[in-house]
Amino acid sequence: MAKKPSIPKGTRDFTPTEVAKRNYIVDIVKKHFEIFGFQPIETPSFENSDTLMGKYGDEGDRLIFKILNSGDFLRKVDEATYARRDTSALTTKISEKALRYDLTVPFARYVVMNQNDIDFPFKRYQIQPVWRADRPQKGRFREFYQCDADVVGADSLLQEVEFVQLYDAVFSDLGLDGVNIKINNRKILAGIAEAIGAKDLLVDFTVALDKLDKIGADGVKKEMSDKGISEESIAKVEPLFSLTGSNSEQLSVLKNLLSNSVDGSKGVEELTYIFETVEALGLKSAELSIDVTLARGLNYYTGAILEVEAPSGVDMGSIGGGGRYDDLTGIFGLPDVSGVGISFGLDRIYLVLEELGRFPETLEQSLEILCLNFGDKEAMAALRLVSQLREAGFKADLYPSDAKIQKQFKYANKRNVPYVILIGEKELAEESFVVKDMESGSQDTYALKNWDDFMQHLKQK
Amino acid sequence: MAKKPSIPKGTRDFTPTEVAKRNYIVDIVKKHFEIFGFQPIETPSFENSDTLMGKYGDEGDRLIFKILNSGDFLRKVDEATYARRDTSALTTKISEKALRYDLTVPFARYVVMNQNDIDFPFKRYQIQPVWRADRPQKGRFREFYQCDADVVGADSLLQEVEFVQLYDAVFSDLGLDGVNIKINNRKILAGIAEAIGAKDLLVDFTVALDKLDKIGADGVKKEMSDKGISEESIAKVEPLFSLTGSNSEQLSVLKNLLSNSVDGSKGVEELTYIFETVEALGLKSAELSIDVTLARGLNYYTGAILEVEAPSGVDMGSIGGGGRYDDLTGIFGLPDVSGVGISFGLDRIYLVLEELGRFPETLEQSLEILCLNFGDKEAMAALRLVSQLREAGFKADLYPSDAKIQKQFKYANKRNVPYVILIGEKELAEESFVVKDMESGSQDTYALKNWDDFMQHLKQK
Repeated sequence: MAKKPSIPKGTRDFTPTEVAKRNYIVDIVKKHFEIFGFQPIETPSFENSDTLMGKYGDEGDRLIFKILNSGDFLRKVDEATYARRDTSALTTKISEKALRYDLTVPFARYVVMNQNDIDFPFKRYQIQPVWRADRPQKGRFREFYQCDADVVGADSLLQEVEFVQLYDAVFSDLGLDGVNIKINNRKILAGIAEAIGAKDLLVDFTVALDKLDKIGADGVKKEMSDKGISEESIAKVEPLFSLTGSNSEQLSVLKNLLSNSVDGSKGVEELTYIFETVEALGLKSAELSIDVTLARGLNYYTGAILEVEAPSGVDMGSIGGGGRYDDLTGIFGLPDVSGVGISFGLDRIYLVLEELGRFPETLEQSLEILCLNFGDKEAMAALRLVSQLREAGFKADLYPSDAKIQKQFKYANKRNVPYVILIGEKELAEESFVVKDMESGSQDTYALKNWDDFMQHLKQK
Repeated sequence: MAKKPSIPKGTRDFTPTEVAKRNYIVDIVKKHFEIFGFQPIETPSFENSDTLMGKYGDEGDRLIFKILNSGDFLRKVDEATYARRDTSALTTKISEKALRYDLTVPFARYVVMNQNDIDFPFKRYQIQPVWRADRPQKGRFREFYQCDADVVGADSLLQEVEFVQLYDAVFSDLGLDGVNIKINNRKILAGIAEAIGAKDLLVDFTVALDKLDKIGADGVKKEMSDKGISEESIAKVEPLFSLTGSNSEQLSVLKNLLSNSVDGSKGVEELTYIFETVEALGLKSAELSIDVTLARGLNYYTGAILEVEAPSGVDMGSIGGGGRYDDLTGIFGLPDVSGVGISFGLDRIYLVLEELGRFPETLEQSLEILCLNFGDKEAMAALRLVSQLREAGFKADLYPSDAKIQKQFKYANKRNVPYVILIGEKELAEESFVVKDMESGSQDTYALKNWDDFMQHLKQK
């Protein structure tokens, strides 16, 4: 007797309904990516290890899934290395490939490899799974999809404006009105660090500030203090924890605070341009707001930093984020290529739509018409009808065996089929078919030769 | 200076045009899967090793990509095993997961794990990548997509009829008229082996017969002889190598030849039913023909065996195949679940469409409208227009910087944009915009407030 099968922890099977719901989100995201002029690329699931290793910090390196070399993988291990029994020395000898950890590094690699064929500015989107050997927990998986859109080779702030519009378009289309698009600028963070005399501690400063949501003002102050930022500096930065007022009021506070910092002033100027332009164009349903505590942990952002919060009342954390990084491809030998991009958090958006009941009901309707099966002769007439309906583009099926009619109806119910067609002995003799509307329970009879009348009826629905 | 990056051998990057072409095929396949009542599922990219190992023969086991355990993977290796330095003993200790090798075994695993929630008959489709550590060569990759549709829990031959119709529907929709759907039945092969007294050598017999296309009649005879099939038996089977005539003529030859074999007669009966039913329903453009040499190498088929050949004149081998297997899930402890399924060979279909020039030209048009950028003020008006066009669903973009107009036009040409919009100083002053039709070269001027007129013009295209 075979062992009961299972799947690796942190991975998931997706049922038909789950796939339909995920595709619903992905299709809307894709549609707007394309409307905004982005083009899809795809990269391999695994990369050469040296493409990925060292790009995500020590923790990242640890979380990258490595693939064992095929065949006799010990062949390349010399006696001395083997004898040392050292995991990391051995890893580089027995594994040369690794699963993609995100879509950004493979994209940078793609741009460098294809730089002569790409028409810059290059607006690409990419929707593919990534893998991380993270400890699985609620909402965190070892295999999950990323949905990224990036522009490389364009310095203009129009890109930032466009990404705000793109977030607005997608979330409005998903029926998620009222998301909060938070924006900050790395130059403002640098300016603040400079203004309070903690310029050298910028990274520690931003990492601490980024945690405001999670650990509160006191926690942030303690962490800054632990990292060696003076009490005096912390006191100077404290007002920022509770910056209030309209966006333009906040911008003018920042402008004054950072007037002596070249970086900081530049950051305020950039943010001001983005706000004014977005305001002039208008948003459908999203809010755009300043959040000077926003750093997104990542050190590669150099300009705008974006993050999207679910509509108020839904406790989900960020459902999207991104920013500008001035040197995307330098790691692969192509310097000075500016990039800016955003991503959508598919799993979290799914949970938000589920919680708010915003998935269209029709997603659970994978079959529009089921013909019941009353035996060989009747089935033949039914199959002919089903073929015609399919040719017209309807999702139609014939129950494959003449099981008890009750069982066939049960199947129709479980698959949420709105119309069931019956061609029994009587109907076959009369060259007709009966259509049962499963919601209302009403029945209509059509002549087989008039099947087109039924289709017209369906199309008007 | 960083090393020039590369990708692992046997893997591919897909450019925007390639993704568009692949999606064109996949979308048509998906559309018909759904019209025929199939539902999508997705399974994880990696499975527990014991789910996959031993399911594809020794050669298959060797070709499965194994994933190194995370962290200190040597922890679980005892001293004695380590000292032996034995690759396969070590593999099971340092690797517990492996990349999916096909979609059939994960599907069987899925069915067993979810048997209580599935409404049988279960018609599922699955389009996901698989990985094989095969030696890469022309048309053979280490990462490639499979597109599978299977029905489990239905014994009826109506399924086989439906799969023939499905192949016909997909290939007709792809503009690949005249594909040849070859069909055979494992029971016929068994009957032949029985009739010639080589019943015990059925596997060797079918494997040899399957190679007729590649090694010719003499090659097949030699291989059969090498495997211990008698000259007398080979003489009996020889007429089958060149079975001719209409399908019904061939069926009647087989019927006579196999009249003493229970299995064989059953196979002929099944094939006859499928042919008669398909003929009664009619096919759009495909041919259906008997091929008694068809075995598809795989030993798990128990009934129908299907394979699709590209239209004559294209030398590509099979572009799809499948069949019935009476015991899909037995390997995971759920016996007697009959399955029947087919798959589409995405990479080969792509090559055929490319060779015949059947991809729609519009696939290379990823952007419908590009607004040129004449500077900040003009760009603002252009951005407003672009936003309106996008809202109406058009793929529109604004060039992100006021680069030389020649450079912007070059970009428009490279991206195959059909319409370029110009809002320069003069147009801004006159509150108008100029539309240049890139194919005809003609220019039209519209008032900015009448942008809807332009959209109506586009929609009529």
